[in-house]
Amino acid sequence: MTDTNTNMRLKLPITCFILEIILIILFGVLVEYDKETDARKWHHSNHSEYDNDFYYRYPSFQDVHVMIFIGFGFLMTFLQRYGFSSVGFNFLIAALALQWATLMQGFFHGMHGGKIHVGVESMINADFCTGSVLISFGAVLGKTSPVQLLVMAVFEVTLFAVNEFILLSLLGTKDAGGSMTIHTFGAYFGLMVARVLYRPNLHKSKHKNSSVYHSDMFAMIGTLYLWMFWPSFNSAITAHGDDQHRTALNTYYSLAACTLSTYAMSALTAHDGKLDMVHIQNAALAGGVAAGTAGEMMLTPFGSMIVGFLAGIISVLGYKYLSPILESKLKIQDTCGVHNLHGMPGVMGAIVGAVTASLATKEIYGDGLEDVFPMVAVDKKSASYQGGIQAISLAVTLGMALGGGLLVGFIMKLPIYGAPSDASCFEDSIYWEVPGDEGGHEGQLTTVKTEEFAKPEETEKLN
Amino acid sequence: MTDTNTNMRLKLPITCFILEIILIILFGVLVEYDKETDARKWHHSNHSEYDNDFYYRYPSFQDVHVMIFIGFGFLMTFLQRYGFSSVGFNFLIAALALQWATLMQGFFHGMHGGKIHVGVESMINADFCTGSVLISFGAVLGKTSPVQLLVMAVFEVTLFAVNEFILLSLLGTKDAGGSMTIHTFGAYFGLMVARVLYRPNLHKSKHKNSSVYHSDMFAMIGTLYLWMFWPSFNSAITAHGDDQHRTALNTYYSLAACTLSTYAMSALTAHDGKLDMVHIQNAALAGGVAAGTAGEMMLTPFGSMIVGFLAGIISVLGYKYLSPILESKLKIQDTCGVHNLHGMPGVMGAIVGAVTASLATKEIYGDGLEDVFPMVAVDKKSASYQGGIQAISLAVTLGMALGGGLLVGFIMKLPIYGAPSDASCFEDSIYWEVPGDEGGHEGQLTTVKTEEFAKPEETEKLN
Amino acid sequence: MTDTNTNMRLKLPITCFILEIILIILFGVLVEYDKETDARKWHHSNHSEYDNDFYYRYPSFQDVHVMIFIGFGFLMTFLQRYGFSSVGFNFLIAALALQWATLMQGFFHGMHGGKIHVGVESMINADFCTGSVLISFGAVLGKTSPVQLLVMAVFEVTLFAVNEFILLSLLGTKDAGGSMTIHTFGAYFGLMVARVLYRPNLHKSKHKNSSVYHSDMFAMIGTLYLWMFWPSFNSAITAHGDDQHRTALNTYYSLAACTLSTYAMSALTAHDGKLDMVHIQNAALAGGVAAGTAGEMMLTPFGSMIVGFLAGIISVLGYKYLSPILESKLKIQDTCGVHNLHGMPGVMGAIVGAVTASLATKEIYGDGLEDVFPMVAVDKKSASYQGGIQAISLAVTLGMALGGGLLVGFIMKLPIYGAPSDASCFEDSIYWEVPGDEGGHEGQLTTVKTEEFAKPEETEKLN
Repeated sequence: MTDTNTNMRLKLPITCFILEIILIILFGVLVEYDKETDARKWHHSNHSEYDNDFYYRYPSFQDVHVMIFIGFGFLMTFLQRYGFSSVGFNFLIAALALQWATLMQGFFHGMHGGKIHVGVESMINADFCTGSVLISFGAVLGKTSPVQLLVMAVFEVTLFAVNEFILLSLLGTKDAGGSMTIHTFGAYFGLMVARVLYRPNLHKSKHKNSSVYHSDMFAMIGTLYLWMFWPSFNSAITAHGDDQHRTALNTYYSLAACTLSTYAMSALTAHDGKLDMVHIQNAALAGGVAAGTAGEMMLTPFGSMIVGFLAGIISVLGYKYLSPILESKLKIQDTCGVHNLHGMPGVMGAIVGAVTASLATKEIYGDGLEDVFPMVAVDKKSASYQGGIQAISLAVTLGMALGGGLLVGFIMKLPIYGAPSDASCFEDSIYWEVPGDEGGHEGQLTTVKTEEFAKPEETEKLN
Repeated sequence: MTDTNTNMRLKLPITCFILEIILIILFGVLVEYDKETDARKWHHSNHSEYDNDFYYRYPSFQDVHVMIFIGFGFLMTFLQRYGFSSVGFNFLIAALALQWATLMQGFFHGMHGGKIHVGVESMINADFCTGSVLISFGAVLGKTSPVQLLVMAVFEVTLFAVNEFILLSLLGTKDAGGSMTIHTFGAYFGLMVARVLYRPNLHKSKHKNSSVYHSDMFAMIGTLYLWMFWPSFNSAITAHGDDQHRTALNTYYSLAACTLSTYAMSALTAHDGKLDMVHIQNAALAGGVAAGTAGEMMLTPFGSMIVGFLAGIISVLGYKYLSPILESKLKIQDTCGVHNLHGMPGVMGAIVGAVTASLATKEIYGDGLEDVFPMVAVDKKSASYQGGIQAISLAVTLGMALGGGLLVGFIMKLPIYGAPSDASCFEDSIYWEVPGDEGGHEGQLTTVKTEEFAKPEETEKLN
Repeated sequence: MTDTNTNMRLKLPITCFILEIILIILFGVLVEYDKETDARKWHHSNHSEYDNDFYYRYPSFQDVHVMIFIGFGFLMTFLQRYGFSSVGFNFLIAALALQWATLMQGFFHGMHGGKIHVGVESMINADFCTGSVLISFGAVLGKTSPVQLLVMAVFEVTLFAVNEFILLSLLGTKDAGGSMTIHTFGAYFGLMVARVLYRPNLHKSKHKNSSVYHSDMFAMIGTLYLWMFWPSFNSAITAHGDDQHRTALNTYYSLAACTLSTYAMSALTAHDGKLDMVHIQNAALAGGVAAGTAGEMMLTPFGSMIVGFLAGIISVLGYKYLSPILESKLKIQDTCGVHNLHGMPGVMGAIVGAVTASLATKEIYGDGLEDVFPMVAVDKKSASYQGGIQAISLAVTLGMALGGGLLVGFIMKLPIYGAPSDASCFEDSIYWEVPGDEGGHEGQLTTVKTEEFAKPEETEKLN
């Protein structure tokens, strides 16, 4: 299936080359090593090698990195004929987004003497921002060209950095695991883009918008890596010591409880009591999202488990009852159900964070209060003020996400990016050389396989 | 295939909800942060952030976590039509077991002033205990309902904690990598459960009790993650410094030698010299099991390699010659061959540990003796006393596992959990919505695929 | 398909047993714990547990370990009927190579009082050397027996250690990430072996020398793990502190830029603008190879991105235009295209390293100069001298690789190892029990699947 419109021969190379060359130039002008990465600066002062932040954060960074590329990438391979695109476009837009995010986040909160300083913390932050873009990707999965996605990434990263700057730097919000900055932002941004890109005739490719047995197995790889490493995600940029430790622990319990309630709800809502892979793959992760803000606080294991337990319930209910309504009433075609995995649990996480923050006392946190709530400990604001700030931040994030998604959705709707037709959505062979299309295969039986796996459009024609 | 008996619509949700709500209540009453996770307590005393145990153990924890969820989960996906259940039930029972284990292990050896203290070490220990349950799961794989498995997990975790308490706290046994506490216990417990649940007519689903090409590929993901991270598993809770370092090193060499002997034996025992994926997927891991007790001791690389080399040989011979006998004579249907991977190598590891312990001298260990054998270094017991304790511990473990498995097997045999019929064992579609059962697929060729992957019961009918 | 020639019943066990027994004896005679792994030695002196190198390097080691076993193993599973062999032989020869490498590298640069000292650094170095062997494996993939591969591994490891000794110990070359020692050496060694083993009639199995949809998905698992963990690979044995930190950062940027240029070039060089999985799976990694030497230097993020950007372009061009010429003109059948992924980018990395080294100044590196260029800082050689040494090292490596590959190629060509016939290359069922060849499958439709996945030779006969 070669189509002039979706032909990427010039569009994709031009976009990639221009973006990468701009990035390289801006990095040349603006970016330099921070004092823990620079040979001269690091050796200038006296310290143990262990004081280098690399040893505090690099293992967490690698876990986050796996979540971004394997976790998100494979989670989206559940579609029967869209595995190359899911994992491949995920790879492409993540590689772009992390570079652009380094610049944007550096511009807003990493400038030192006119230069953006980079090190392991900027790497983690860039990966976090990338995660937000990949959440939005989940909402439009299967219906966009790679060029469209690159355009989305550039704008979304920029707006993400603005929102993050408002929250973390201007308002003093706490959101280490990004319930608001990453999940709520990414989900509602993506949902709004999906709304703008609404396709009334998407039913033409409906038969491809579902899984097959082995594609669900690949997707479980993504799910499990996200699940296992979420404690690292939420704790990656919290303060050293008890903060990182506690955040990982809280997230671990939240996820465990969420898994139990997800399985329970999946069986309960099925007419024949059978488990639904969509729920297991997604809703079991909602506990990580919902612990993203309060995870670093003294939420206690007890509190974490309640949060995770409820997040799993809400998420399965969303998949079962809300997603169909979103599509039929609000015209939001949310391929991966990011509203159920990142949207609602993200909002819930923000609220849990606001409540937990407003309950903070010196008695509970001791001298650790400064690490978690510097505004309360140092600036002598009240805990309920902090809680209010957290609530306002949720509103700001929702506004930025919806407004930004609306704007960027219209930019993405321009008919110049080679988006697929309604009938060729959820189909790898539009943008990829799919094996079996040509070449060395011989024999009747092999042809059967080839057609099954690789030529869905011919399968259709046969009927 | 919908069956009233195996319908999980009420059974599974009720079980999950009751268990999780009990867990949450008990966590609320009993569990609190330990002094390295609690904001107030950690900041109360003066220390470098690096002294926080998080930095010593969290990377190991994450490796162990991957072994539990990806390693065990995917290792069991080798069955052609049981991938959803293998990885999905593994996920469910692990999420339950790690919570329950936190309570049980905390109750037996983590109480401080009436509270169970949690942190990275309790997370690792809970994952370890979960590993034991997953080993037992391997023995009954394909023949149990998720509710049965949850019931097994609750009881097995409890008995695991009792056995662990007897060994580590009462007797003073050393077993950092759990040759006894985890592998021997999990294997013989599971084998006894399998014995009680013996199905004389299991041949009805025999054609599904085997692999297909791509299911073996998925299983290799599990194998390799177990193999790669086993050094982290055995060293995760040893003393800081040389102990963690040495344990990882010993395990690495044991596994490498085991891999060579596994390939050799696999080819040697095949009539046509072809390698058998069952051996590669499983026996190559026996070296990690067999180094589970002695790994932290001064086993030397030389000793580790001999141990691994022999473990691989024993394990392949078990798969080839012993497993058929276990099934035909002892009526133990051991789906994954856990006797060959965890049972015999676990016993071997216990014996190696006992011998190595009895050879310990102050000359060899220097001041490090206290870390490895505090009973010898501090309580002035002789090394042979320690060796005797190790041997007794093996006997205790075998007794606890077999007795516990017998008891729990009969509990699991009650006809109330929705276990599959003999003909529907090893079959995902009993408990899962399997893609292709209904929905958007159209066209003849797609139907072929659908039937192949998803409707084995119809395939049978056609004959 | 059972064939007397390729029957491994005696050949493989004898080879494995002899090699492993030799290894065990040599380890018994020669190897002992280093001072950070030995209980007595470590406790003999006073230091914080954190000073143990385990905590500086073990997380990096585990990442490298994943690259070796999952990364390389799954990257090569792209072939439609060679998944068992790709991941299984990778596993076997890696397990051998890391043991043999410990001895060879220890012999050349780890002897202390007649003993080879082992610890986390020797583990990383052994894995590095193993990586080189696996690169060569990629060149001959599908055309060799496991015994042949073991023989190759033994000789290649030995020559690798000699070359490494010449470079690192005699010449004072810097090559932390192994652009020369690992990638250039492994690639050109493997290419020369492939040249010697040239098969004029390989077209007989041409239809199997390609991917299918799901085999490309498995290969992406390998690609992504290599990509994600490459920063750990390049930084695993650099000096503590800023050096490890900077190397990881540089590699991260190089890979991100490389990914963009790879996608661009893949679309640009396809006549219909469709992305080619071969490029994405391989060329996107060239940025890691090309940053292997200069990664630890003050290359700057800007420089790293330029290097990665160019490496991606070169690599795709190699796959598209150079590989066919290598096969038709030079008679080099390079199955995985290691020349494009490791060969050219490795040479490029060496050159970048030489240039970067020659530009080193005390002003840029400060007191960190000693860590990166001890020869310049301590021995007072000039930076351009270091640059010259780097360039000479590339020439030495190319010579050693080509000469060694020639020699070992002829050893491997002896008709005693059970190599596959031309028609049975790229075929698992020569050396593996492939499911479906016999056993419990019943029914017409299942048979179709069986034949598709497992009996390609019969598929051919049917035509």
